[in-house]
Amino acid sequence: MHNNRFSECDHKYMARAIELAKRGRFTTTPNPNVGCVLVKDNQIIGEGFHIQAGGPHAEVHALKMAGDNAKGATAYVTLEPCSHYGRTPPCAEGLIKAGVSRVVAAMVDPNPEVAGRGLKMLEDAGIETDFGLLNDEAEALNLGFLKRMRTNLPYVRCKLAASLDGKTALENGESKWITSSESRRAVQDLRAESCAVLSGADTVIIDNAKLNVRLEELTDTDAKLSARQPIRVIIDSQNRLTPDLALFQQPSKIIIARTTLDKSHTWPHFVEQVVVEQNNSKVDLSALLSLLAERGVNLVLLEAGATLAGKMFEQQLVDELVLFMAPKLMGHSSKSLINLPTFTTMSQVPELEINTLKQVGQDICLRALVKRN
Amino acid sequence: MHNNRFSECDHKYMARAIELAKRGRFTTTPNPNVGCVLVKDNQIIGEGFHIQAGGPHAEVHALKMAGDNAKGATAYVTLEPCSHYGRTPPCAEGLIKAGVSRVVAAMVDPNPEVAGRGLKMLEDAGIETDFGLLNDEAEALNLGFLKRMRTNLPYVRCKLAASLDGKTALENGESKWITSSESRRAVQDLRAESCAVLSGADTVIIDNAKLNVRLEELTDTDAKLSARQPIRVIIDSQNRLTPDLALFQQPSKIIIARTTLDKSHTWPHFVEQVVVEQNNSKVDLSALLSLLAERGVNLVLLEAGATLAGKMFEQQLVDELVLFMAPKLMGHSSKSLINLPTFTTMSQVPELEINTLKQVGQDICLRALVKRN
Repeated sequence: MHNNRFSECDHKYMARAIELAKRGRFTTTPNPNVGCVLVKDNQIIGEGFHIQAGGPHAEVHALKMAGDNAKGATAYVTLEPCSHYGRTPPCAEGLIKAGVSRVVAAMVDPNPEVAGRGLKMLEDAGIETDFGLLNDEAEALNLGFLKRMRTNLPYVRCKLAASLDGKTALENGESKWITSSESRRAVQDLRAESCAVLSGADTVIIDNAKLNVRLEELTDTDAKLSARQPIRVIIDSQNRLTPDLALFQQPSKIIIARTTLDKSHTWPHFVEQVVVEQNNSKVDLSALLSLLAERGVNLVLLEAGATLAGKMFEQQLVDELVLFMAPKLMGHSSKSLINLPTFTTMSQVPELEINTLKQVGQDICLRALVKRN
Repeated sequence: MHNNRFSECDHKYMARAIELAKRGRFTTTPNPNVGCVLVKDNQIIGEGFHIQAGGPHAEVHALKMAGDNAKGATAYVTLEPCSHYGRTPPCAEGLIKAGVSRVVAAMVDPNPEVAGRGLKMLEDAGIETDFGLLNDEAEALNLGFLKRMRTNLPYVRCKLAASLDGKTALENGESKWITSSESRRAVQDLRAESCAVLSGADTVIIDNAKLNVRLEELTDTDAKLSARQPIRVIIDSQNRLTPDLALFQQPSKIIIARTTLDKSHTWPHFVEQVVVEQNNSKVDLSALLSLLAERGVNLVLLEAGATLAGKMFEQQLVDELVLFMAPKLMGHSSKSLINLPTFTTMSQVPELEINTLKQVGQDICLRALVKRN
């Protein structure tokens, strides 16, 4: 097992495997997105991607398509083939049985159940193995899964929307609509890509928000085909939510994170109350994220007001900011985007790194990664 | 004179004339940027651009280069040739004398001294004329000049810098440095392109700002060759400026706009005090801009704090916003970008239209045009 230089063809086929893997990004959770391409005599003879947990892995699809022809082929996989019996048999075994002669993985699987064992199993069977080809692209496929495997916490993407001067509502609370309909549609894709949408009771009560994926507004082709409703996770430390809110009209899984159970209301069957560790009589955010990770939540979309978003940043629990900005100026008396402690020097200010920048309708949308101290 | 369809060649040569015109953008004030290309037998036989007021116009350079060969040529000019005796004889006359057979202008010159008379003079001499080719690009060459000709007011570009949440300083005033050195360098190019930099006494006193072009920080090649120092215009309604400030260490033209003359200090020779009409015992901003336009100021770069910038937006005196944003979050207690009246509905909020969007170093820079009600 060694990190070789790779050929132009290797790059081409791994890029194809990555394209395939992406097609599963609205459905594979809690599993990672994986793509596989089988190549013989410089021809693709099989390919596939993981569609859904419990269903066949990418390698199985590709091997089935190639049939006996797989003997002597090279397999390109975006993540190290698994070595353990999960809901399906190990893919490393499948590749060995099919008689492939070389396996190139974009990256090693940090899942402690794999972690190099898949490649080792292949090597032990006399198969040539390589890894590290298009590693960064493969990492980007599975931000959530990889973070959870490495840290037992989900990847948290914080979505915020504001005017150019960073305001989210007028002094009187008026905020409909700051961003354009195109931006609000783009948010549907973000939700569909997430395992959970996290918000606070305030947002749910004040905006009477449903926080579901509005399927008819999706723009991504793959999302339109296969979008699921992410778990909606609402922090309600003071038990202020009531079952009459719009949130509860959408019959898909809701977790209410509380400090004490609410027994004064009858909740729909899809609502689960979870009592989480406290921190100053509020739900401890880090404990809540750990709990979500234990349940297989890879990617959390945080859609919260200035207070909860601020606490999440302050506690360094946010990985990425997706900020929609409408070309408007709302002025100093309007409400600010994010509440943070009062800093006294610029060195205390949270810093990010711009990742992408684009126009969405009349608005701009930027993605930035949070820098760690 | 009619707005023809233009050929592919026409487009190519006018695009070249526009490229040429741009090279004068740091020097031609109060004149417009103009480029001219002379073409015969599908070959460029002469070209030029206006470099400096008082110097030859673009057409003169091009005709000189072409010499006798200009007879029968087509002239492409980014602005209608002038018809009046200014500091130089009319270009329409020069083109007639040289015997060109066709003149294509990107746009008619709104200067009341021209305004179609140049093209008329050419037509009367039997020359075929056209206009309207690459009109938008030609407009963009001379935002300032054209606005001044049409409205007797300069084009005002407001430069602001903030964090992603629209903050310009911490609660304690700390603001060094929010944006990156690349952004601060880009500001030097913006200054060099402007006829005047407009600011308030507050900014000059608090930041001890010089507001000059730091020549060594220019990034634009043309600017490096030829940058001038724009007039610095400081609004000081309460006569708070003192000659010891850093502003006065740079010996280039300063206009202090006041409500009453300051007679208690001795000012350097390059400082002019101007008493402007009052509005609530403050300098009337609109009157000040009219005064600057009368003096030939085409393009004003507004570099002001939240109060003055807000007043300028509120009075609809700003044409364009150039906003640098650093990937930082400073929190609600930090100082907001712009002070505006407290709005009660979103329909009252000033709206803009994003024009360009790019990364500058670690920061983002957007340009947006102010929408008029």
